[in-house]
Amino acid sequence: MAEIVHVPLDGGRAYDIHIGAGLLTNVGEVVNGVARSNRAVIVSQPPIAKHYAKTVADSLVAAGFDAPDVVLFPAGERYKTHRTLEKLYGALYELRPAIDRKTLLVALGGGVVGDVVGFLAATYLRGLDYVQVPTTLLAMVDSSVGGKTGIDYRAGKNLIGAFHQPRAVFADTATLRTLPVRELQAGSAEVIKYGVIRLPRLIDDVIASSEFGTICGPRYPHAVLSGAIRRSCEIKAEVVTRDEYETTGLRAILNFGHTIGHAVEAATNYRRYKHGEAVAIGMIAAACIGEVAGVTPPQVRDDVRRAVFNAKLPSALPDDVSDDALIALLGRDKKSENGAPKFVLARALGDVVSGVAVEESAIREGLAMQRAKYTAEGVPS
Amino acid sequence: MAEIVHVPLDGGRAYDIHIGAGLLTNVGEVVNGVARSNRAVIVSQPPIAKHYAKTVADSLVAAGFDAPDVVLFPAGERYKTHRTLEKLYGALYELRPAIDRKTLLVALGGGVVGDVVGFLAATYLRGLDYVQVPTTLLAMVDSSVGGKTGIDYRAGKNLIGAFHQPRAVFADTATLRTLPVRELQAGSAEVIKYGVIRLPRLIDDVIASSEFGTICGPRYPHAVLSGAIRRSCEIKAEVVTRDEYETTGLRAILNFGHTIGHAVEAATNYRRYKHGEAVAIGMIAAACIGEVAGVTPPQVRDDVRRAVFNAKLPSALPDDVSDDALIALLGRDKKSENGAPKFVLARALGDVVSGVAVEESAIREGLAMQRAKYTAEGVPS
Repeated sequence: MAEIVHVPLDGGRAYDIHIGAGLLTNVGEVVNGVARSNRAVIVSQPPIAKHYAKTVADSLVAAGFDAPDVVLFPAGERYKTHRTLEKLYGALYELRPAIDRKTLLVALGGGVVGDVVGFLAATYLRGLDYVQVPTTLLAMVDSSVGGKTGIDYRAGKNLIGAFHQPRAVFADTATLRTLPVRELQAGSAEVIKYGVIRLPRLIDDVIASSEFGTICGPRYPHAVLSGAIRRSCEIKAEVVTRDEYETTGLRAILNFGHTIGHAVEAATNYRRYKHGEAVAIGMIAAACIGEVAGVTPPQVRDDVRRAVFNAKLPSALPDDVSDDALIALLGRDKKSENGAPKFVLARALGDVVSGVAVEESAIREGLAMQRAKYTAEGVPS
Repeated sequence: MAEIVHVPLDGGRAYDIHIGAGLLTNVGEVVNGVARSNRAVIVSQPPIAKHYAKTVADSLVAAGFDAPDVVLFPAGERYKTHRTLEKLYGALYELRPAIDRKTLLVALGGGVVGDVVGFLAATYLRGLDYVQVPTTLLAMVDSSVGGKTGIDYRAGKNLIGAFHQPRAVFADTATLRTLPVRELQAGSAEVIKYGVIRLPRLIDDVIASSEFGTICGPRYPHAVLSGAIRRSCEIKAEVVTRDEYETTGLRAILNFGHTIGHAVEAATNYRRYKHGEAVAIGMIAAACIGEVAGVTPPQVRDDVRRAVFNAKLPSALPDDVSDDALIALLGRDKKSENGAPKFVLARALGDVVSGVAVEESAIREGLAMQRAKYTAEGVPS
């Protein structure tokens, strides 16, 4: 049974997020209602395509589509580059018959697939329709919804990109069963984030889940997982609808934990941490910095830390990355203004404020607090 | 005295096109009203920057902007590539202090500059504001208005791109005085196009101009030139406002002459013809094909041909490019559907119909007519 979260954007850009176990087989049927031709191209990565491309392709064919082409690129954040993009443009260009503006792209995979294929769709032939079929928890609760697309450039995560909304999102929770545990844990960082910014109940879910291992460990009740995904998507849908292009400051709250998180990812060349792991570290950093800035009560830091710990996510900054290195990277953050980073800080669980300019001295003091209080426990090996 | 054409797009995307001699010195003042910070970066090409970058920069500084950085890339359609784009991303990335989302890009130059910088603005940090400062007739009457941005990919002109509207357009007609005559002639092809699709008077202007050489030759009355630019922009503004994303078929009329024109450019590697020259050939082709299809009266072809001839533009297909080669390239056109090209055909001067699927046999017959009737006269050496 699929649950549906509606994203009520105007200008014909509204779409539905379908959530449920086994709904990959329904993709074709639903997509039929939004596609502008019978031509679809599935873009994915080898390990994911191996598991799911046939199911999606069969579903499209059953719904009357031509047998879709499948285009693959290598897995890993380090392939989220200009070079990959150029190869994908080439792959689309080489398809016979040539694809046209009414062709639908299907982004099948995790956050990297969604971001790259979204940007491909935003820019090929000045814009193709696409649907997101996220197969990781992180992509289901966060990156597949809201139309942010892009690639990394040098040390800048998503430095090149565009806003381009999908026509539909399909979160088949059954695909999470084949997801490595570390990926599940990483995804739960974003669920914790939604708890901090809007709905503390989600943090309780994550904390309560410790008895099961992680929120989405194999023994965790499916209904709880599915509910956490739905609630996360509801928050994201509401925020995106009210501030689609991140101009009012509202959408920026979704970046709680991401300011330092992005810097940690960049400083470690996007190789050491999963995105969610870096966000976990960044949420602790945001709590510490908020505490120094007099915005965040210590209890919030404790609560975030407990959730992060229970989800088996890291809370310590990497020893081999200096504060100087992190601060230098902050000036490159997309949310910076005049080189000064902007933070999202928590006033309480469920209540954050965005766009806060923090003095460099306070950032350093916050990072020092984090380094003093949280050691390398939980850092992925 | 500047004339202003308003482009009344909704969603905060409305903007003005300023047309007049000498208005480069006013860019800063006007831009002040639309810019979201004091930071601007001028992106241009060496020969154009040499003439005009200082004037624009001084005007920005006089209006309270920081002294703008100037970023250059080589002139020529063959640099409208992914590689150039990557270098420009790198140049923006290297600027100190780092640029932020409120930084304004200034596209100073011809059509290639406008298209590339527009796409750069569309995709860097998921979207920067930009203004167009066109310095060629072609860019003034056509490419700087309407938000189409992009780069070429392999044989596909503008195959990669996005819709991203500028915040203002500044057409300083005084810059045309330093433009090579061949560029002026090429630009007049687009003026003829507006005549065919909407306002026959523009064709009369071009035809009448034969006594002066070309519509924008050195002895041509400035008021006529300025008027032709304004009227062309008015048509483009109206069409773009009614069909911004080219979904209703209306905007497609702006591509009269471009279907075969693009194929001619691609078949000659974008090196032999200026864009406007290829469009001139393409307009004759569209008239011939329209005639074969029973849509276009022979008189229209004669009128278009006369205007093209008087503007010293080519009307003959290149001898060394076969019909097979052109037809193979048509399938790659962005307006193709299921590999079948769509044509804009004239029913009368000022009245065209878009989205016409023409049988391949009729395309071949039209091309044969063009080859039989129009020889290599007027082809650029």
